[in-house]
Formats: sequence, structure tokens, C-alpha cells
Amino acid sequence: MRTLVRDLAGPTGTTVRVCGWAEAVPDNPCTTAPVLSVRDHTGAVDVIVDAGEQLRAVTQGSAVDVTATIGAPREGVLRLVLVDLRVVGPAADPPPLGDGAPLDARLDWRYLDLRRPRNRLVFEVQTTLERAMRDWWDRHGFLEVHTPKFRAAPNMSGRELFAVDYFGRPAYLAQSPQFYKQMAMSAGFERVFEIGPVFRANPLITPRHDTEFVSVDVEVAWIDDHEDVMGMEEELLRSAIAEVALTHSAAVQDLFGREIRVPDAPFPRVTMAEAAAIVAGRGQGPTAPRTDLDADGERRLAEHVGGKSGHELVFVTAYPASARPFYHMRLKDGSALTRSFDLLWNGVEITTGGQREHRYERLVAQAERNPARVDVIRPYLDFFRHGCPPHGGFGLGLSRLLMCLLGLDDVRETTFLPRDRHRLTP
Amino acid sequence: MRTLVRDLAGPTGTTVRVCGWAEAVPDNPCTTAPVLSVRDHTGAVDVIVDAGEQLRAVTQGSAVDVTATIGAPREGVLRLVLVDLRVVGPAADPPPLGDGAPLDARLDWRYLDLRRPRNRLVFEVQTTLERAMRDWWDRHGFLEVHTPKFRAAPNMSGRELFAVDYFGRPAYLAQSPQFYKQMAMSAGFERVFEIGPVFRANPLITPRHDTEFVSVDVEVAWIDDHEDVMGMEEELLRSAIAEVALTHSAAVQDLFGREIRVPDAPFPRVTMAEAAAIVAGRGQGPTAPRTDLDADGERRLAEHVGGKSGHELVFVTAYPASARPFYHMRLKDGSALTRSFDLLWNGVEITTGGQREHRYERLVAQAERNPARVDVIRPYLDFFRHGCPPHGGFGLGLSRLLMCLLGLDDVRETTFLPRDRHRLTP
Repeated sequence: MRTLVRDLAGPTGTTVRVCGWAEAVPDNPCTTAPVLSVRDHTGAVDVIVDAGEQLRAVTQGSAVDVTATIGAPREGVLRLVLVDLRVVGPAADPPPLGDGAPLDARLDWRYLDLRRPRNRLVFEVQTTLERAMRDWWDRHGFLEVHTPKFRAAPNMSGRELFAVDYFGRPAYLAQSPQFYKQMAMSAGFERVFEIGPVFRANPLITPRHDTEFVSVDVEVAWIDDHEDVMGMEEELLRSAIAEVALTHSAAVQDLFGREIRVPDAPFPRVTMAEAAAIVAGRGQGPTAPRTDLDADGERRLAEHVGGKSGHELVFVTAYPASARPFYHMRLKDGSALTRSFDLLWNGVEITTGGQREHRYERLVAQAERNPARVDVIRPYLDFFRHGCPPHGGFGLGLSRLLMCLLGLDDVRETTFLPRDRHRLTP
Repeated sequence: MRTLVRDLAGPTGTTVRVCGWAEAVPDNPCTTAPVLSVRDHTGAVDVIVDAGEQLRAVTQGSAVDVTATIGAPREGVLRLVLVDLRVVGPAADPPPLGDGAPLDARLDWRYLDLRRPRNRLVFEVQTTLERAMRDWWDRHGFLEVHTPKFRAAPNMSGRELFAVDYFGRPAYLAQSPQFYKQMAMSAGFERVFEIGPVFRANPLITPRHDTEFVSVDVEVAWIDDHEDVMGMEEELLRSAIAEVALTHSAAVQDLFGREIRVPDAPFPRVTMAEAAAIVAGRGQGPTAPRTDLDADGERRLAEHVGGKSGHELVFVTAYPASARPFYHMRLKDGSALTRSFDLLWNGVEITTGGQREHRYERLVAQAERNPARVDVIRPYLDFFRHGCPPHGGFGLGLSRLLMCLLGLDDVRETTFLPRDRHRLTP
């Protein structure tokens, strides 16, 4: 029966079995009583080796199955005395990934990189975040949906699409479950969520972009406006972050030097027009009427909001229709502004959301401002013709959320096996 | 403030607001006190209309926002009296999908098809199943992973693969997270799960196949053999089905005429050789040495097991190496049989699993039996060279599990928006 390292206990001489990695193998196993460090996912333990002979076949990083007895502690720390050691998964020597390797090399050897407690913690936090969000959805009567990733037609813009050879005809990979979760509204599902991959043929290599990422999507019916959606996202995030704080705050403080704090509600809100004025006032003068923020503007806005309210999060609302996809509802009929929002965390956009236009004639009229492409999209609009209630929702990038929560600076750090224009392996 | 239909209550004359669909609109609204049926996702209620005039703009299926008062009940059933009705999402008249429409027509109008309580219930059960499985994983220390769907190389067989134009070079969509979840073992994640889409370019149109489906994947390290994996799947399924029984048994009995029963453990187990003998004894004589079961054989085996033990589920184990991918561990070194299993439910294969070969040299030797393709796969085997512990796991088709649980006969019934060779819409 195996014992996890964190559970090792008992009187001196008790026999235990530990399974894990030979983390540190003594350089010269012929010295008297060399010490082998063995790590599993719960911690590391020193194993005192009686005869160095036993370590001849052990290379650093090998998977080892160790039988030992509980030995005398050293400075209060439990140690083991080796009885038997089996190398069940030998590691090629020397290990290909040293300490301090740059991110790209770490990603080449991602399965070794992820053995480090700091990197593993990212995915422990991810697991807790998702569980806590699902608990919230469960308490609020949401259905989980899995929308198709194959679609027959390109999207409205035709940009950033991956094409698939689908039995001799083209199909396209979904860039978002947008229309599919809206179909769930037409189907009367009322409140849905999905956590699943989306695909974007983005040729840029930036710390915020990859070609596939996990999107957390929510859509709800019978809302009054986008404020209902923002209020829901606030509640959801606060509940999930509280759970992460409860479970991981000590480890995150220890390994990332970051305090997990539950953000106060309501999060600050500024309109896009206000944000433009703030950014202009902080030295980034607009060269043209501003309809959206660039990365620099997002950073300046974050500085302003943080200085004024101490808040790391801010909703930017009421984007001009020209800066948003056609399916957004206008603030009022005829307005040039939309019932839309982004959520920024320390200047990183983690969410886009809003209320959708559910009235078929208005929706088609809005789509027709791009007459060259409207035929492509029209079949998708059919489901608005059969009794679609008012609705809205948002999409949240899981790796960006984790990156902001942990104070990291690249979504590759919070993605299990990242993909970008150049990276398709491992 | 909206009230859900299931929560309607109160003294006669109380004003309420109900939001949902005009499910049944009286043919002739000019009759005295016509009755409109309004449904939301929690039920339907009759609304007595004082002046038929109010229904002139209402078509069947329209999304309506109704203000009414609680009226006198009829035969103990609560009814409402209309005060005001707003059509917020008009439906084109007549509805394009009638009762008794064949499956293909229903799928063409899937978002209307899913309004039916029976079809909605499938996704309520799905939500509960997934939640209960996640609870089980949470209790047992699993990490949730999201593996990439893009891969650089085709798989070993080169079959059933979708190719993507990836910035001018080919990439392939993952048919399973197999190697990626194994990488998590090499990364020391120990116990992982994923619920996500997989892609299979299967040209056949059958009730059991689609081109993308949701796979429930599990992988665990430090197992002794495949029996550990089967025992784990038994526990997981029993726990999840018990939760479905608790939450939905009355509704499933009512709408599907099916009793949700938690299967006894252990599930029956037969080796592939025993299964072949059973199937031959039931009139399907083998024409060649049998290494796998076809659909007819699976059905005959299910009859045999059901008749003998009353069990709907059976593990078939120890498939010959010739019938399994190269990465399976052999029963013993040198054996022609593998540490593999399928799980069948009423003759439908819902799971494939087993212990993997984690020893690099043996794995490469097994792969090299197909020398024409081994170069394609070799880069993926690198992660076995750096200390990989023994491990195993399984993949479970979510739509097949739901199909078997509810006694349905087509995975399209248990898929939100199905995809197959011919179907890419809606």
C-alpha cells in the first residue's frame, strides 16, 4: 500500500512505500549514507541510503518505487531509511531541462516543466476555479452544454478561421460558441454554461494569445439588459475566487508571492467614452475618435482605476456599434452605442459580453451593414424567427483568468500544452 | 419580478409575471374566455384570456412576457387570468416542426425540438451526470486538464483523421486525448480527468457514431494493472448514476418509461476469448479466430450476460494485441494478450481502457510492428524516456452513456447539436 509523502507518519522503524521521482540523486553514491530525495505530487522526502550500491541504476527524474522505514527525524523533519528501491520508469541522463530554462525550452519539455510544484499549482488552482464555478451554476439552475466545434459556414468577418477538410468540402472550427449558446436560448434552456476549446487562427505571437484556448461561456435568457450579465459575472467570479483563496492562498503566497483577494462588488464600471477620456488624460492622446482600447490604453486605464479605487478589475461598457459584432443590442433603439462590456483585470481583457439583439428584423438590419458577408451568416439567424426571448451572456478566457489571478505574464504559463502559430508540440 | 411556472402559488388575485412560450394558442381567439398555454423550462400553465383581442398578435411558439393574476383553480390545477401580454420574440407561423416529425427533421430544427420537456430532460440528466462525476473526482484528488485539440502529426493508423490548414502546413484534430493525458502522468499529475470534444472522420452514418463527440477521459498513475482502472470506473459510474436516480428518476420514468437503477458492483467480467465462445454458442459462429466483437456479437453477449446475471453492463477484457493499439501493456511480458478492456452497456461499447506500456524500449518495440508508421509516432514517445510511472485509464463516450442510461437508440438524441458526415448544421 502506497503512502503519499504528505501522509508519512508513524513510529521509527515503520515500513512504508513511497512512489514518485528521484528528484535529487547524490553525485557520489559511494559516500557514506548518501541521501536521495523522492518527490510525489504532495511533497518531497529524504531517503537515507545505507549502501550507495542501491543507487547505481537511479538517474535524476526516474520514477521509483521505494520501500523504506521511518527513520530518526533531522531538525524536526521526517526522513526515511531505504530498504528497497525499484526503478520502474528510468529517466535518460542528464535531464534535458535545467533550472532557469527560458519559457520556450520549458514548453518543449512541458511534461518535465510541470513536475515543478509551482507549475503544478497552476492546474490545482484551475481545477478549484472550475469546480467552484460549476457549483455556482448548479446553485443557480444552469444546464451544461457542449456545442459543436465544426460549423458549415465561416463567420461574419471571415478572419482568424481554421478550415478543415470535411469529407471533401470545407468546414470551419468554432471561434466561439456564440450562436450555439444563443440557440440554447431559443431552445428554452434559459441558463447555460460551457467550458470548452475555441480556435482562432491568430498569426501573432503575444503573451496573451494562442490558437486554441479554453473559453468559459455563459448565456442567460429573460434579462433586462447587460447590467444583469455583469452582475452575474461578478457573483460568479467572487464565489470562485473565494474558493481558490480558501484552498490555495498559502501555496499561492509561497510559490507566486501573490495574495488571493476576493474583489469587492460591484466592480468599477466606466463607459468606453469615459475610458477614452481617462486614457487621453494619462498621456495617450487619441489620434482618431477612440472606439476601443489597445493594450497600452488598457494598461493606463488599469492604473487609473487602481489608483482611484484600489480595484484590479474594471468593466468597460457601451462600446460603439462600429467596434462590436453586429449581434449586440443597442443601448436604445437607434443609438450608436451597444449593450456590451469587456472585463479587464490589471489591464488584461478577460471577458467580452453583453445583451444580444434577439429581434430578427433588427438583427438582420444590423448584419446588412456588411452586405458582402450577410449571406454567409443568414442561415444562422433562422433561430431568431421562432420565438427567441431576450438574452445575453459572456465569454471568459480561462488561461487569462488564471494568469491574472496568479499575477503571471503569459497565458502559456497557465495552459497545459500551449499552441500558437509556431508551436504544435509536444 | 418573474415567477417560474413551478413556483406559481398564492391567493386568488395575486399579480404574477410569467415568461415563456405560447405553447398552445386557441384556434379562434374570438370565443369567450379562450385559454392560452404558456410554458417555461419548469412547466406549463393555462392563462385565461378575457378578451380574445389580446391574442391577435400571438403565434404558437412566440416568446411572451405575461402579467396575470392567480385565478380560481380548475380540478385542483392552478390557472392564471391574463392582465397584459407582450410578444417579445415573435414566432413565424406556422411552426416548422410538427409532432411526430422524424429524427432528421427534428435535428434540422433542433432548437425547437429541444423545447420539448423530454428532450430537455436529456441535458438535465447530462448536467447531473457530469456534476456527479466531477464530485467523485474531487473527492479522489483528481486534477482537471484541458488537452490541445491540434496535433502536429497524424496518429499511428492515419485513419479517421481531420486535417486542418494550420498557417499553410497541416495539423490534425485530436481523435482522443490519449497521449496528452499520458503526458500528464509523466508530469506527475497522478490522477487527471478531462471532459472535452474529440474528432473522428468517420464516414459511416450509424446510430452510434458522429464526427465529433464529448469524451470523458481519465488517467491514473501507480496502478498495479487494468483491474485498478475497471474498479475505478465502476465506482465512478455507480456514484454518478446514483445521483441521477436521486434527482431525475421520477421524470425519467415519466418521459422515457425507464427506471434508473444503480448497477451492482462488481460488473460482470469476461475475457475476449470467453466472449467469443459465448457469441459462437449463441449462433454466431466465427469464420476466423475472433479478436473483437462486432455490433451483433456485442448484442448477443449482452443477452447472455443479462440472462445469467441480470446485469446490463459487462467488462470484456484481455483483447489480443492484434486488435488493440500498440500502446497497451501485455498481460505478461511476451503474452499475445493485452491489459485492456471495453465496457459494454446493453451491447453498446461505451468505454475503452486499459493499462499502458510505460517502458520506453518495450513501447517502441510494440510500435515497430508497424514500421511504415513508427516514425510518425516516435516524437510522441519521448515523454516515456524521462521517468514515466506505470499508469492506465479509460475514455467514455458521454452521448453513448446517456443513450444507454435513458434507453434511447441513437446518440443524436443525446447530443445538443449533432455532427456527422452529412450534417454540419444548424
